[in-house]
Amino acid sequence: MSRFGDSTAVRRVAEGRYETVLDGAFGFADAINGGYLMAILGRAAVEVSPHAHPVSTAATFQRVARPGPAEVIVEPRKVGRTAATSLVTLVQDGRRAVDALITTGTLDGAAEPSWSDTPPLPPLPPLEECADYQPDPGDEGIATQLDMRFDRATMGWLDGRPSGRPEIRAWFRFRDPHEPDALALALAVDALPPVVFNLGVKGWSPTVELTWHLRAVPAPGWLALHGSGRLLSGGWFDEEVEVWDSAGRLVAQSRQIAREGR
Amino acid sequence: MSRFGDSTAVRRVAEGRYETVLDGAFGFADAINGGYLMAILGRAAVEVSPHAHPVSTAATFQRVARPGPAEVIVEPRKVGRTAATSLVTLVQDGRRAVDALITTGTLDGAAEPSWSDTPPLPPLPPLEECADYQPDPGDEGIATQLDMRFDRATMGWLDGRPSGRPEIRAWFRFRDPHEPDALALALAVDALPPVVFNLGVKGWSPTVELTWHLRAVPAPGWLALHGSGRLLSGGWFDEEVEVWDSAGRLVAQSRQIAREGR
Repeated sequence: MSRFGDSTAVRRVAEGRYETVLDGAFGFADAINGGYLMAILGRAAVEVSPHAHPVSTAATFQRVARPGPAEVIVEPRKVGRTAATSLVTLVQDGRRAVDALITTGTLDGAAEPSWSDTPPLPPLPPLEECADYQPDPGDEGIATQLDMRFDRATMGWLDGRPSGRPEIRAWFRFRDPHEPDALALALAVDALPPVVFNLGVKGWSPTVELTWHLRAVPAPGWLALHGSGRLLSGGWFDEEVEVWDSAGRLVAQSRQIAREGR
Repeated sequence: MSRFGDSTAVRRVAEGRYETVLDGAFGFADAINGGYLMAILGRAAVEVSPHAHPVSTAATFQRVARPGPAEVIVEPRKVGRTAATSLVTLVQDGRRAVDALITTGTLDGAAEPSWSDTPPLPPLPPLEECADYQPDPGDEGIATQLDMRFDRATMGWLDGRPSGRPEIRAWFRFRDPHEPDALALALAVDALPPVVFNLGVKGWSPTVELTWHLRAVPAPGWLALHGSGRLLSGGWFDEEVEVWDSAGRLVAQSRQIAREGR
């Protein structure tokens, strides 16, 4: 029923070693999406942990991963009562593609926030006012899996009219009837086009490091993604993504640092 | 001339192995400051790298470090033309205290930002309007090293009047005449009291994970620190710190996730 669930499966082959098969349906032009890779690594981290959720993930991207078999190596670094940390590595063809420090914990689904900031301004327009791009014919990549509806005010770059502010906002869900879970948020924080497209940057912008924190397990329904950046200088840029669920809760926060495309 | 420079020194003892001595003057009640530890790890990462600056540091804090000898182990994970990534570990008494994924690069000091967001609002009040707390008599910790001037509007928690918003803002420099450098920013992003003190939280709030990015080597002079948070829920909170230099440039960005003190 869920392509994402099936495609993030890991199979234990030895203590701390897992096999997986990277699914090109979560790629773009034969490069596998970093958020999907983080979901796989989070799943392996939870497998070896006494805790249920990947609360904090700090990933460095060293080589592009391709569709096909890969291995996940999990080295526990600390196991504690409220949190456990592992070094989790994705290896493909004998070479490291991603290293991540992942801290697992168990979030209380019934916890009410002690304090929460308000959602970002401007809010996302309603779904029916957003732009709905269909996958190109023959596209077998991530656009076939994700149903995203974009705030038109942040998509002028598609028509050669970048807004001049590094911001992109969109609604997010799976195309198949799979409600978002904790691992889906790993995908959500890396699903937007680079926000610097609105500064006139074009082309592939490789992520160097991305850290995301799971703040709550999301409620069923659409997720709202707010992407923004603070600085583009010397070819380096930051991109922050906040994810809000259908219950109006902040469920994930991320920041990545990336290289400007050429 | 610089206590910070001396106290972050690392001495190579073998390939990828360094000795250091943790200086209690960068601690608080016998617990060593996490920012100071990140500065040491960054220095070791640069030692083994062809690049000059610790551009991105993602650190997980597993045990409190104490004043005295410690070892730094650097495992290169990828060496590239524009960036190199290492896993850097602080070990004390045979036990891991901190693991960090550190990506080094070489920032161009003459680079002009292609785009930069404006500094946060509200701005820091002028130095002379800020609160200047002197170290308590007998204090030999970090307050003896750092000259920080706090925005009074964010310090009501000291007098039992927390502001109700998780924000703390302060000017930052060393007490000795040492201008800020790239490594000083590792200290700056972890120098503020926990922002949740303004939500009525009290006591030690252990950092679980902290990621910071160096965006530019700072100009001489005071640094401006803007700390804020988005959510306190289930005992977990986030804290973001932005650091701006005397030339008005964004020089560092950080986010940490931490546990509420008890």
